[in-house]
Amino acid sequence: MDLKAYLEERRGWVNRALKAYLPQVRGPAFRVTQAMHYSLFVGGKRLRPILCLAASEAVGGDPGEALPAACALEMIHTYSLIHDDLPAMDDDDLRRGQPTCHKKFDEATAILAGDGLLTEAFHLIASAASRYEGRERLLLEVMQLVAAAAGYQGMVGGQMLDLLAEGRQVTLKELETIHRHKTGALLTAAVRAGALMGGGNRAEVTCLTGYGEKFGLTFQITDDLLDIEGEVAEMGKAAGMDEKRRKATYPAVLGLEATREWARRLVEEALASLESFQARAEPLRELARYLLVRRA
Amino acid sequence: MDLKAYLEERRGWVNRALKAYLPQVRGPAFRVTQAMHYSLFVGGKRLRPILCLAASEAVGGDPGEALPAACALEMIHTYSLIHDDLPAMDDDDLRRGQPTCHKKFDEATAILAGDGLLTEAFHLIASAASRYEGRERLLLEVMQLVAAAAGYQGMVGGQMLDLLAEGRQVTLKELETIHRHKTGALLTAAVRAGALMGGGNRAEVTCLTGYGEKFGLTFQITDDLLDIEGEVAEMGKAAGMDEKRRKATYPAVLGLEATREWARRLVEEALASLESFQARAEPLRELARYLLVRRA
Repeated sequence: MDLKAYLEERRGWVNRALKAYLPQVRGPAFRVTQAMHYSLFVGGKRLRPILCLAASEAVGGDPGEALPAACALEMIHTYSLIHDDLPAMDDDDLRRGQPTCHKKFDEATAILAGDGLLTEAFHLIASAASRYEGRERLLLEVMQLVAAAAGYQGMVGGQMLDLLAEGRQVTLKELETIHRHKTGALLTAAVRAGALMGGGNRAEVTCLTGYGEKFGLTFQITDDLLDIEGEVAEMGKAAGMDEKRRKATYPAVLGLEATREWARRLVEEALASLESFQARAEPLRELARYLLVRRA
Repeated sequence: MDLKAYLEERRGWVNRALKAYLPQVRGPAFRVTQAMHYSLFVGGKRLRPILCLAASEAVGGDPGEALPAACALEMIHTYSLIHDDLPAMDDDDLRRGQPTCHKKFDEATAILAGDGLLTEAFHLIASAASRYEGRERLLLEVMQLVAAAAGYQGMVGGQMLDLLAEGRQVTLKELETIHRHKTGALLTAAVRAGALMGGGNRAEVTCLTGYGEKFGLTFQITDDLLDIEGEVAEMGKAAGMDEKRRKATYPAVLGLEATREWARRLVEEALASLESFQARAEPLRELARYLLVRRA
């Protein structure tokens, strides 16, 4: 299959749906919707929604039906970036080469834009009720798992751990805990939500959850590798850690070669989780393989 | 009826339910759950949950069944206070005489605690699914209206408007728009959610929504009056506006006596919305009357 064409098509679906769900209403609070839009459309691979749609396809679902959950996941991801970039958090001025939300607008607007996107994500899933008559229970289950993955048991907890770990040496076990919460939980939730929205049975949902967990961890590992390789290429030195904040990374703890080997093994395991699936899971397989060669 | 005893009993229900829903888990992200707890239990009248329970009772519902929505509303209210108090927003060090969340912990933790409470609110409503078998649609409707009231179309939009209005003269119409979004929307949602969770029919829900709208506006007006009267009593001068930030208030725009008269008229209208209800709506009636005599 042509992964590039697949990703582009899905990205188009997601972007069109996001624009429809979040019309840029001119109204008294225009500034906050403007900021929500800015961060939502300033770029982004749409990885979480694409995983969600692909998981829905893998169990034979209509990917269009999974779009509300897919878009909600992207809103939650975007809100987390806006808040993580704030001066009190990671204090980043740029993201994807563009000013971060609080730089483009101001801190108060950025806090509110994040709050607005998080709230809108749940509004969006709840609003899908009319298309899920007789299957409302499913939407509530998706809402519950997405909220658990986004909240203190998941992403919010992970960002707290990450901040608490700043500037000190962490063990490999701590690093895994941070990433499992901070990025892994929402990536896994994306796959699981797609499997549920697509009508997957319990066995299918369990297999796909396993895939999602391996995918999430591999994503973080290859992110660390990209950071290092990027710095080597651009700056001519092999020092990938963010020295200013001394963030822990896998290559720093394990070494470069062992990290690469681990990522390859994890992708094998992710593919093994998909063994019982036929050709419909091919996009999920390609997405996992892509992690090993991605350049961004 | 004895309103004081009623309020105390309901407050007890809500506090016990909140403690059960948000156990203070010792775990890797302990600090953020600690901050969520701190702000949730540092005080508070529990007005939104009590309104929600009372509306459920008014339509003959079991108030226990409305507790998930009631507690979710309190979590959303608490998150909004945490974020509004941040240095980038209203920059308040104290709330109810106690350090605000970012003072007790730090800014990053306060942002995350707010995010965590907002997320948990939706998790809580979705988790009620097992008690709503066959009525899942109702939970989705409640979720949708609560999210709309909390997001950019409601509370988040209202806080944006409030910040944009700082330091300049606003008209009465602008002031109403700010308050309808910032505080009115969530108070109305509390009444409406309770009416739905209690099994109210469309006519009942409409009447109670009318009550909620009047209640919300009166609440803000009497809040402004309390501020002035508090300052008169404590500081011996009749200048109730927050001079530092020159926030607009009803007494400043309308004058003290006209504001009091308007509040009285609104309470009459709120009571009129309850005309078709029998004794079961007595707590809602007492709550509306109480607005005119409250001291806090």
